[in-house]
Amino acid sequence: MTELGSRLRSGDRRALAQAITLAESTRSEHRLQAEALLVELLPFTGGSQRVALSGPPGAGKSSLVDALGAQAIARGKRVAVLAIDPASLETGGSLLGDAVRMQQLAAVEQAFVRASSNAGTLGGTAPATREAILLCEAAGFELVLIETVGVGQAEQAVRDVCDTLLVLTLAGGGDEVQALKRGLLEVADAVLVNKTDGAGEASALAFAAELGSALALLRPRSEPHVAAVSALSGLGVVELLAWLDARYRAEQGSGQLAARRQRQLERAFRTAISRELLEHARSEPRARELLPELQRAVADGRLLPTAAARQLATSLFGAEA
Amino acid sequence: MTELGSRLRSGDRRALAQAITLAESTRSEHRLQAEALLVELLPFTGGSQRVALSGPPGAGKSSLVDALGAQAIARGKRVAVLAIDPASLETGGSLLGDAVRMQQLAAVEQAFVRASSNAGTLGGTAPATREAILLCEAAGFELVLIETVGVGQAEQAVRDVCDTLLVLTLAGGGDEVQALKRGLLEVADAVLVNKTDGAGEASALAFAAELGSALALLRPRSEPHVAAVSALSGLGVVELLAWLDARYRAEQGSGQLAARRQRQLERAFRTAISRELLEHARSEPRARELLPELQRAVADGRLLPTAAARQLATSLFGAEA
Repeated sequence: MTELGSRLRSGDRRALAQAITLAESTRSEHRLQAEALLVELLPFTGGSQRVALSGPPGAGKSSLVDALGAQAIARGKRVAVLAIDPASLETGGSLLGDAVRMQQLAAVEQAFVRASSNAGTLGGTAPATREAILLCEAAGFELVLIETVGVGQAEQAVRDVCDTLLVLTLAGGGDEVQALKRGLLEVADAVLVNKTDGAGEASALAFAAELGSALALLRPRSEPHVAAVSALSGLGVVELLAWLDARYRAEQGSGQLAARRQRQLERAFRTAISRELLEHARSEPRARELLPELQRAVADGRLLPTAAARQLATSLFGAEA
Repeated sequence: MTELGSRLRSGDRRALAQAITLAESTRSEHRLQAEALLVELLPFTGGSQRVALSGPPGAGKSSLVDALGAQAIARGKRVAVLAIDPASLETGGSLLGDAVRMQQLAAVEQAFVRASSNAGTLGGTAPATREAILLCEAAGFELVLIETVGVGQAEQAVRDVCDTLLVLTLAGGGDEVQALKRGLLEVADAVLVNKTDGAGEASALAFAAELGSALALLRPRSEPHVAAVSALSGLGVVELLAWLDARYRAEQGSGQLAARRQRQLERAFRTAISRELLEHARSEPRARELLPELQRAVADGRLLPTAAARQLATSLFGAEA
């Protein structure tokens, strides 16, 4: 095993951080190093609960991750937090600041906190996140919390790497919920109404009840867990952790966990193949010349997408076999 | 212009049926003929309302399409119906039977009804459906109704070709709604509760009101139109057509229609490129040998998806430029 690999296996957080940096790098020598490292570590992966937490800015994701992580650590677990910000250019990198505010987790050795400002393509985010999770597992972390803003396609990307998707929202007349993108509530495994404390407690409880009814009506077969929580007072945090543990054990026992991870892996492979082929194709001079022309012709309605795609492929591979 | 193209342009329904058969064919000579035909017809496309209707078996999709189509024809429109059944192997081709039951539309010359039993890949369904719509438009049809079971990924495929997605459901304790797959209600532009007639009228009206509240809560920014309808009595059919017309005109005026169609076209092109590259890659002997090995290695956790994809691409293109 490489030296970095051994250090990482022993739980060294610096080694883990270094390995994730390699995995996130776009330089091909780093990518190759990261992949070599991951291949030697793959036998030691798969042993964590992979839990994603999505929600609009201001919903209190980082505070809840902090509370949840601290509680898990109190129960003897090692906890890794991956804060992924696919839109850091837009949000001014607020997540990076958020991660710094995870006071409880920052202070203890059983926690690892990593904020990634993946301003690149989304296609690039998912594999790096998947690999960061594997690295955390190889380093012995048993709960991996993936914090995301969860907008647009990023939500699909995060679903493709986690076992459980938590969606955090707030009460308050719909204004805050509106920040939730179409589709997010629909796919959540659990919907949590945060800030159920102080003056907002009654309205948060009422909103959680409303959400529960609405989701029961719209998702009768896959009704999500709905709960009111408070990262501030700790309301519902122990219960949430118990729900996560119970779900994890049940899905392990039934084989659902393994089956989902297998499907995620197959999808990751298909996506990677498409991306690799497209990247290689783009680096061929003929395709690089042809692609913008074809794009224009399709957009102008002069050429069918299928015909344009075939022209591109034929320019690379010759006529079909 | 080819003879088939001229006949189709004159509104000849036989020519239209023949052209769609070419577009749906998997034989490459037919594909080439279809594409040549479509290229000459492209200037005459884009002029229809593209409306998809999804819902579980038994919700009464065909009856509603029949009622809606008949009403549109009464207002002077020419109406094409494309009944797409991506899972015909599973459902025993019930949609084909359904289409035959469109009594009102079958009888008039202003209508064209086509049932496609696309048992092939989903990737194959979407381009053929897109092309069938274009062919209907070139033949002068002003309302194209796409009827689908709307399950799983087929729903994404149909969203990618329509301007408006109607979801049909039924009242009745959740049993029928359960047949709606996760995600369908979430993306609907309108949700229609059918069979609001006879003994079921009161419960259908109540269910529509419940759905309206639930969707208002969960989708405050993109609240869908919710209505109770009856294909049998005609309740709500004229109003639905008026709503569709108003939406179409508004989206035409605001540029939303053109923008959405442009995005759909770009997505179709990207998908077509991925598929073409993958197909060509698979027909190369080296890749055909390598792919199953790589798939096993990824599934067994011996190889990363990204590394496996790069090996495949490198075997085809050589090392990266």
